[in-house]
Amino acid sequence: MSKMPAMSELFKVLTPSAAWAKLQPHLSVQRDREPLPTAEALDRVIAAPYPAPHDLPQFPRSTVDGFAVRAVDTHGASAAIPAYLTVVGAVAMGQEPTVEIAVGETTVVHTGGMVPAGADAVVMVEHSQSVEEKNLEVYRAVAAGENVIQIGEDVRRGEKLLSEGHLLRPQDLGGLLALGITEVQVVRRPCVAVLSQGDEVVPPDRSPDLGQVRDINSYTLSALIRQSGGEALLRWGVLPDRLEALQKAARQALDAADVVVITAGSSVSVQDMTAEVIDCMGKPGILAHGLAIKPGKPTVIAVCEGKPVFGLPGNPVSAMVVFRLMVAPAIAYLLGTAPPAPTPVSARLARNIASQTGREDFVPVRLKQNEGTVWAEPIFGKSNLIYTLVRADGWVRVSLDSNGLSEGDDVEVQLF
Amino acid sequence: MSKMPAMSELFKVLTPSAAWAKLQPHLSVQRDREPLPTAEALDRVIAAPYPAPHDLPQFPRSTVDGFAVRAVDTHGASAAIPAYLTVVGAVAMGQEPTVEIAVGETTVVHTGGMVPAGADAVVMVEHSQSVEEKNLEVYRAVAAGENVIQIGEDVRRGEKLLSEGHLLRPQDLGGLLALGITEVQVVRRPCVAVLSQGDEVVPPDRSPDLGQVRDINSYTLSALIRQSGGEALLRWGVLPDRLEALQKAARQALDAADVVVITAGSSVSVQDMTAEVIDCMGKPGILAHGLAIKPGKPTVIAVCEGKPVFGLPGNPVSAMVVFRLMVAPAIAYLLGTAPPAPTPVSARLARNIASQTGREDFVPVRLKQNEGTVWAEPIFGKSNLIYTLVRADGWVRVSLDSNGLSEGDDVEVQLF
Repeated sequence: MSKMPAMSELFKVLTPSAAWAKLQPHLSVQRDREPLPTAEALDRVIAAPYPAPHDLPQFPRSTVDGFAVRAVDTHGASAAIPAYLTVVGAVAMGQEPTVEIAVGETTVVHTGGMVPAGADAVVMVEHSQSVEEKNLEVYRAVAAGENVIQIGEDVRRGEKLLSEGHLLRPQDLGGLLALGITEVQVVRRPCVAVLSQGDEVVPPDRSPDLGQVRDINSYTLSALIRQSGGEALLRWGVLPDRLEALQKAARQALDAADVVVITAGSSVSVQDMTAEVIDCMGKPGILAHGLAIKPGKPTVIAVCEGKPVFGLPGNPVSAMVVFRLMVAPAIAYLLGTAPPAPTPVSARLARNIASQTGREDFVPVRLKQNEGTVWAEPIFGKSNLIYTLVRADGWVRVSLDSNGLSEGDDVEVQLF
Repeated sequence: MSKMPAMSELFKVLTPSAAWAKLQPHLSVQRDREPLPTAEALDRVIAAPYPAPHDLPQFPRSTVDGFAVRAVDTHGASAAIPAYLTVVGAVAMGQEPTVEIAVGETTVVHTGGMVPAGADAVVMVEHSQSVEEKNLEVYRAVAAGENVIQIGEDVRRGEKLLSEGHLLRPQDLGGLLALGITEVQVVRRPCVAVLSQGDEVVPPDRSPDLGQVRDINSYTLSALIRQSGGEALLRWGVLPDRLEALQKAARQALDAADVVVITAGSSVSVQDMTAEVIDCMGKPGILAHGLAIKPGKPTVIAVCEGKPVFGLPGNPVSAMVVFRLMVAPAIAYLLGTAPPAPTPVSARLARNIASQTGREDFVPVRLKQNEGTVWAEPIFGKSNLIYTLVRADGWVRVSLDSNGLSEGDDVEVQLF
């Protein structure tokens, strides 16, 4: 027992932003890319800008149902003194018009249909009246270009579509497909190895004996990795608290993955072992040992052989806090995309939260509606409780320079 | 052309909330469920509450590194007058203790380790000092239960874990696995048939002739359906503007899917055809023909044979607006879960937006940072432009009773 506090005395405790500032210069955007059918590329990150292969639209399109005209032929038209035009045909949808519009002529055109040569505007059907079959009265003048989408008005040929690092949304897939780009190069998902360690930890399908618990961090972290755009690698199972076993697995993980996450127990001796293993994995090694946050202090952040390595605290609340603060932004950085933007929910705090200055606190809260007000009710309790996070809707952050928040304060709740 | 406005005169234009109020009573939560490995059930909706099969934890666990004691043996202990205890062993991680604590005795215990019988609290290692091998000085008293998680303190056996309709988050997977629930029953994803129609529309891998455009709505809608928790069914390809072809496909779609979405052109004649087809698909038929929104007015909302059927406007901006307002909530309802909660971003409006009262406007905006302020810059322009949505980050809603918003107004931007 006497050796227990040794390593913890060497903690280089940093704020999350200071730790990120030390980590970030070592990261670089993933170079590997892979082709994917555009229709299946939702939520993937585009690896290169695509220049538009052609104009969009490729022909002048009507935006209304009506009559294609030479605008000049409608000048001065009104309900009292209509313009009279001769209907020389109709443009069928999906077809190139067979007629050309000469002075005093018009054709029927539908929304989305091609405006024929000679015409430069479309009169809405509501502003006209057919008189017999071939004659049209126009009651309102149109300007040149009115009710027409010009060639290239949506996108010009050669225009850069989406930027490198853009996360593909439903409408982006549509935008690419509209130009015939049916395959896209996306950034390969960073592979994140998850090593779970603990003599007391058994796989979830095993019935634990007294003193044992089931592995849950591997699976919670895998889901978080997936949500963050990464691919989790779990092949090592649960590792025992033996230095050699952990060292061997860590070496394999570093070779196989782009990021390594080690989640161990919360005892100081096990944490020391994790730190020792990480310290031997390669240069430059440990950048931060300890974060000025609660929960989540006993975190190790390192870079080994160019790859980020994280030693996460064993308890689930801490592991999730540190994942969201450090690992998710690192995955986003490797993907070359912006980290997930926080979109907090505003609420009023239902109870006081005490804190210490010099430390960021992350307090799980439950949201409750009461007479139109959204209240954030802190879930206090031991951070080792698994169901704290299940019962919570999000967290409230108490900043470094604050010594707490008061009941009734307006707070922002980050959902998770 | 003379028949064109006929159907549109019959429009039963409703506000989105009035349309939802008419639709919702016809919807019911999907009964079909399917088993899934818990570890793969992220973002799925749980079909039944699970009672906890056992207490969690199943044994009293230490929350610190230290010494398991009878609290009463530490009463009155201080740095000046320590309590003296005899160390009778150490609890190995993952093992049931082999010793029982009697008066004046203690054992080493690590964080997460089992507190042995006889002990009811744990003294932190920082508040003690080993003197020779077997003797321990305790400098601070502990209360009964201190630094111990009791049996069932996290979850009690039989306690209901998660409610029916809960969307599984990473921590929920961990919570279920902690109790050995390695398989869960989830609600089957609602199957949403997408019918795309238009004589001018060709598949995205085809090079369109003059007058033709590529199908994009099928793919944008599929991605939106997937995001909303549904499964898109696209097997019908692009349908021509012929009543019989559309009727046949609509009938097949209604048989095959839980929801039918028809996306047609924007011309009134095609919209009329869509409405006519939907009206013949079954009772009670069309509930709303036209929504008091812009864009998105020419929308048909119906229920046929108990299944929601949507006729979406053909232009991409409108289709997406109506999807998010109507189709996504319907999918959530079928899943038995809450519709995606809007978490808007606050911004200041960069330009005036004109609107009409009696209509909700949805104006695409681009977000720009400028000296610490987030500005929402409206993207005006024809709603037929595909890239309007690609260039936008979200939309600003102008409410029914407003006739516009002014530059500098605080607005909420719903990201998309």
